[in-house]
Amino acid sequence: MNWKLAARAAKMNPSVLREILKVTERPGIISLAGGLPSPKTFPIQAFADACAEVLHNDGQAALQYAASEGYAPLRQAVADMLPWNVDPAQVLITTGSQQGLDLVAKVLIDPGSRVLVETPTYLGALQAFGPMEPNPVSVASDDEGVIVEDLVAKARATGGRASEDAARFVYLLPNFQNPTGRTMTEARRAAVSAAAAAAGLPIVEDNPYGELWFDEAPPLPLTARNPEGCIYLGSFSKVLAPGLRLGFLVAPKAIFPKLLQAKQAVDLHTPIFTQRMVSAVMKDNFLERHVPTIRALYKRQRDAMMAALKREMAGLDVKFNAPKGGMFLWARLPEGIDTVALLPKAVERNVAFVPGAPFYADQGDPRTLRLSFVTASVEEIDTAIAALALTLREELALLGERKLAPEPV
Amino acid sequence: MNWKLAARAAKMNPSVLREILKVTERPGIISLAGGLPSPKTFPIQAFADACAEVLHNDGQAALQYAASEGYAPLRQAVADMLPWNVDPAQVLITTGSQQGLDLVAKVLIDPGSRVLVETPTYLGALQAFGPMEPNPVSVASDDEGVIVEDLVAKARATGGRASEDAARFVYLLPNFQNPTGRTMTEARRAAVSAAAAAAGLPIVEDNPYGELWFDEAPPLPLTARNPEGCIYLGSFSKVLAPGLRLGFLVAPKAIFPKLLQAKQAVDLHTPIFTQRMVSAVMKDNFLERHVPTIRALYKRQRDAMMAALKREMAGLDVKFNAPKGGMFLWARLPEGIDTVALLPKAVERNVAFVPGAPFYADQGDPRTLRLSFVTASVEEIDTAIAALALTLREELALLGERKLAPEPV
Repeated sequence: MNWKLAARAAKMNPSVLREILKVTERPGIISLAGGLPSPKTFPIQAFADACAEVLHNDGQAALQYAASEGYAPLRQAVADMLPWNVDPAQVLITTGSQQGLDLVAKVLIDPGSRVLVETPTYLGALQAFGPMEPNPVSVASDDEGVIVEDLVAKARATGGRASEDAARFVYLLPNFQNPTGRTMTEARRAAVSAAAAAAGLPIVEDNPYGELWFDEAPPLPLTARNPEGCIYLGSFSKVLAPGLRLGFLVAPKAIFPKLLQAKQAVDLHTPIFTQRMVSAVMKDNFLERHVPTIRALYKRQRDAMMAALKREMAGLDVKFNAPKGGMFLWARLPEGIDTVALLPKAVERNVAFVPGAPFYADQGDPRTLRLSFVTASVEEIDTAIAALALTLREELALLGERKLAPEPV
Repeated sequence: MNWKLAARAAKMNPSVLREILKVTERPGIISLAGGLPSPKTFPIQAFADACAEVLHNDGQAALQYAASEGYAPLRQAVADMLPWNVDPAQVLITTGSQQGLDLVAKVLIDPGSRVLVETPTYLGALQAFGPMEPNPVSVASDDEGVIVEDLVAKARATGGRASEDAARFVYLLPNFQNPTGRTMTEARRAAVSAAAAAAGLPIVEDNPYGELWFDEAPPLPLTARNPEGCIYLGSFSKVLAPGLRLGFLVAPKAIFPKLLQAKQAVDLHTPIFTQRMVSAVMKDNFLERHVPTIRALYKRQRDAMMAALKREMAGLDVKFNAPKGGMFLWARLPEGIDTVALLPKAVERNVAFVPGAPFYADQGDPRTLRLSFVTASVEEIDTAIAALALTLREELALLGERKLAPEPV
């Protein structure tokens, strides 16, 4: 048969991570790899009550076709939840925030369009954008987020060809970023927002982790500072449960109708049953009681991971950050280490992590890795970090021997 | 802000139908327009039991991230359900079969690619394919489906440019087609299957209505005749409930991995909670008891609609078919009538239908319309068809007067 593939299919590849991580599904492995929320936080009884209620009160409507925009009370609840003035008519319910990335890509990216991303950036976004064949360009970033001068320079049109147009948008994840765990400071947000507005550069702001702060809420979203210049993506995956695939986007009137048309074409609408379930769960300010329990759990586990790293990596040139929320910690191992090569050796010792290199739109730093502190318990984190340190010390010893060995002739 | 849209966004338009049908949502209107399954058929209690069971037995897994391929027992159930030898590894669970169309388009359509469709065809497929910028080409069709000679002629490459490549695939809906309600005969299936295989033309077979037969099951699917040359799309929307957005596709090994990669990028996976719900509902051969009740209801309503049409349209040149299953009946009104112009007048008389023209990839027949016999009750169908006939007679009278009136000078 002539299964001739579209050119864009060449841009779809098995997720590098997914392939690497298959090995980590072996029983007995403590995984610090996946971005899986702790299932202990899923409010199962509240969901059971909501299902029963929705099916009893509104069963027929909850099982029928529904509006592409989403369930009106849920759109209202999203608007009410956000810290700026949001018209529910600007809220589109999506099948997870991953779908928001797909819709944004479809509507805004032509083949060759420059799309600006952080260094490193969320791999799932690169995968969502990929089929629309953008040219993703890394913006230099430090501990506070993207560096404004580089953002402005890379936003500009550079010539006459399509690939040299002004960048279509910058994709930013300001709170407890995936993969680095870093948070954009208030000063940097103000500067990025002003610079993007001045340059006419749209911002796609992704905020799946913003509610998972440990000591204080992060600064205001970028979108709150210039709603007409931003598309905001949010999710119920981290505050309720990811298995429902329920997210949302907020878009200005200039772009909302196209995102809605794209949404209609991809799945008609997000399952209305789960929308009504979540709407029922969220009544009576449920999230205000529930989310603090998630924060407290994840904070204890972050503390345990940082303490274990300090203890176990003592004397080694290992750098790691101190995330103020979210799910991930970012580390950089000593010179000479390649975390892709290290992973199978760590798995031999029953611990898994995610190598950092695939998160870079361009050349990745092979010494980096991402550690999730949310899925494993405190005891498991202690065991896993000790195993990781042991693996690393062995690898460093091997490297030392290799350096001492005579060069092959 | 520089919200520069991708070129493909110009191919996304508000659904013509959706805009037309907004007017039909007025209270008091009997709608024969939408393709909404009768909510009387939704097995609400079975869903309530399944939700409780899934959350009680597997709550954490049912709410966690899950595999992009879908829930293994559901993939197995789909494979078992289909009348040819299907490996569950070839089954991909989708967020409604509409998502299957989106994935197919992403993986197989380049801008300008010829995609063959029936005359007329399912509008939602044209909308799903649209953003990938195909050149949809209508294949001449009669009461038995596409005409083989025209299919073969239009499948062939015609020149050197991309737009003149061999057609990428033909999209066919052989059972109780949307919009016409027609069914491809056994002889036509055999001929189409052989011709497509000989031409190396892939078939995308859409079968949302196949289980809704009234007197006898339709002939074997095209995919069963040549699984390596076909992608098969199915849905739980018409046998259980559309509001869960649960469908599936079956694809040969040559193309499955790319469809899976596209799926990962668009929503990571279909909600696992609803997959487990449906899997629980389907245990103990539930569908074998449930689907016959839907068939019986829809058959009664089809009979009522055909009887009402015969009675109310007597003496008028109105042609309509006798669908052997599914949800829709197709009619053609007398010379001079434009159903788009007729619709608002019908709505004035509290009845709505869908004009046929938007279902054609090229020039539509303005005299056609689609009538759904599944949502309205027998009594409502009687009232609605009487109102439609009255509207039509008035319109014909007006046309007659216009013909008698002197030409404007």
